[in-house]
Amino acid sequence: MSSDVFESLKKRYLTLRKKEVIRVLKVQDAIVSEIRDFLKGECFVEILAPIIGPVTDPGIRGAKQISFDYYGARFKVMSSMILYKQVMMTSLPKIFALSPNIRLEPLETVKTRRHLTEFRQIDLEVAHATYKDMMELGERMLCHIITKVKHRCSKELEEQKRVLKVPQKPFKKYTYKEALEILKNLGINVNFGLEIPWEAEEALSKIHKEPFWITDFPVEARGFYYMEHEDNLGILDLGILKDFDLIYPEGFGEAVSGGEREYRYNKIVERMRASEENISEYGWYLDMLKAGVPPSAGFGIGVERLTRFICGLENIWDAVPFPKVAGVLSS
Amino acid sequence: MSSDVFESLKKRYLTLRKKEVIRVLKVQDAIVSEIRDFLKGECFVEILAPIIGPVTDPGIRGAKQISFDYYGARFKVMSSMILYKQVMMTSLPKIFALSPNIRLEPLETVKTRRHLTEFRQIDLEVAHATYKDMMELGERMLCHIITKVKHRCSKELEEQKRVLKVPQKPFKKYTYKEALEILKNLGINVNFGLEIPWEAEEALSKIHKEPFWITDFPVEARGFYYMEHEDNLGILDLGILKDFDLIYPEGFGEAVSGGEREYRYNKIVERMRASEENISEYGWYLDMLKAGVPPSAGFGIGVERLTRFICGLENIWDAVPFPKVAGVLSS
Repeated sequence: MSSDVFESLKKRYLTLRKKEVIRVLKVQDAIVSEIRDFLKGECFVEILAPIIGPVTDPGIRGAKQISFDYYGARFKVMSSMILYKQVMMTSLPKIFALSPNIRLEPLETVKTRRHLTEFRQIDLEVAHATYKDMMELGERMLCHIITKVKHRCSKELEEQKRVLKVPQKPFKKYTYKEALEILKNLGINVNFGLEIPWEAEEALSKIHKEPFWITDFPVEARGFYYMEHEDNLGILDLGILKDFDLIYPEGFGEAVSGGEREYRYNKIVERMRASEENISEYGWYLDMLKAGVPPSAGFGIGVERLTRFICGLENIWDAVPFPKVAGVLSS
Repeated sequence: MSSDVFESLKKRYLTLRKKEVIRVLKVQDAIVSEIRDFLKGECFVEILAPIIGPVTDPGIRGAKQISFDYYGARFKVMSSMILYKQVMMTSLPKIFALSPNIRLEPLETVKTRRHLTEFRQIDLEVAHATYKDMMELGERMLCHIITKVKHRCSKELEEQKRVLKVPQKPFKKYTYKEALEILKNLGINVNFGLEIPWEAEEALSKIHKEPFWITDFPVEARGFYYMEHEDNLGILDLGILKDFDLIYPEGFGEAVSGGEREYRYNKIVERMRASEENISEYGWYLDMLKAGVPPSAGFGIGVERLTRFICGLENIWDAVPFPKVAGVLSS
């Protein structure tokens, strides 16, 4: 990354007035409002997302969390509201939130051009839904947003020289295992059980013209809160999850991450032990599981990444008013 | 505050399912969506609020900020996005955001029943507007929300036994000086130049049946970013600001805080020196002012306090899914 880019990020107050920036902010406004309209039409209730708490999502691929003293206890800034979405299922069957997320990413993530240390997701969760239900909802949602934003922001997208096509439903679906085979044919080897590295995911994304799903990740690669398939579909003794990522085409990479949730106390504790989580940190979450919570499924869709894809931006830091990039001391 | 209340806050996973809670969450959803509809109708663009940054609002009445290491520098979690709203004025003339705010309040704020350590504001700002323009907008906005929510949530408000009246415009307006005189008649003495204490504000609120404004606070009581009146309206040598608070009636207290912004570099530095701010912390903000920013005015309206008022709730912690109250280690 050139130091010019970093210098420009530090002087955001000089670039915010550029017409290219204003254009993207207007499209972002339309995107967020169309997501909400779609979800309201599906009877979702918008809730206020937590910002801090004693515990947050540990499944964040080597990024660090912000930890601080909260009246004598250790609290964290949310890296995702996943645990809080689960407890909401005791209250309302369909919820969403514009949720603030902080992940202090390793410096090398800058070169992916799609990582920010501060970002927002539209986070949603549905009680008694399966992961397949959520994939179907995700497809309809993305098609709705693209259709509406193409229409509402035709002038901005034209100036952006972005030709957007409404994807055809149903989207292509690969299991994690199938994705590894495609990668092997591209000369990229990923060991079964590991997360698909960013470069490999980008390579997969580049050979596609339409968004596609990767499903059924191995237990080892993901957080303890995803539900495992009952029949072992993995190789060796590795468990497989009822989860998914949605990948944008054209090299834009990951759009959505989600799945069906594990909600049984014993199973969660077992999984926490296996992934060497500090169980004592999960006080209220485990108490909640003991008290009982309905099964659910859901996902989070990154607002900045969606903006980047829709506007066809090279860099994620052009898809947010106040970009925070690992290692850059910007505003 | 009884320890039962604290225990119940720590076990939020048991109370979220109560019908009284679900009712409030549904009304909150309607409130947030009606605010957005109103602002969209006024041609505001919704932007993504910052979550963290090198500098945030210092004018937070004795609350502490969360400060943490960000790639070798000190960063803070936003206590309000005021400084960021000002820089947005270089980009878009009318903006709003659902902004996340953290203020680690002193323990004694618990008894006000209207302080949370984590809360959200709908934060808005308009370029080239005066503080009077913003008060007019605030009145129309509040009347719009109440009218719409009364209609959309009539069932919930009835179950809540909340009789809501659409306030009459224009709202009553007191200057700070006049408010101090009313307080004196109530037997409460506040020295000119000091912030109006919470108890005094509540007393004022209790003797009103409709929302009302307090304007023209003294410079000493507020942040450096408010514009001063050119003619000195204060007593002695104290300067007076073009700012306002909107106060809910019936004891519910502060609703809105805002005003016209100081945007001139020299004036801001002068004010920072007078209030003994650490000027070296305000790097990008001062650079921005030097580069030039349009004058503006704006305000923030607390979403949880608005929910509390509309639902007629005794306690602010019943107006949010995951309440954070000073000193209570809840989820």
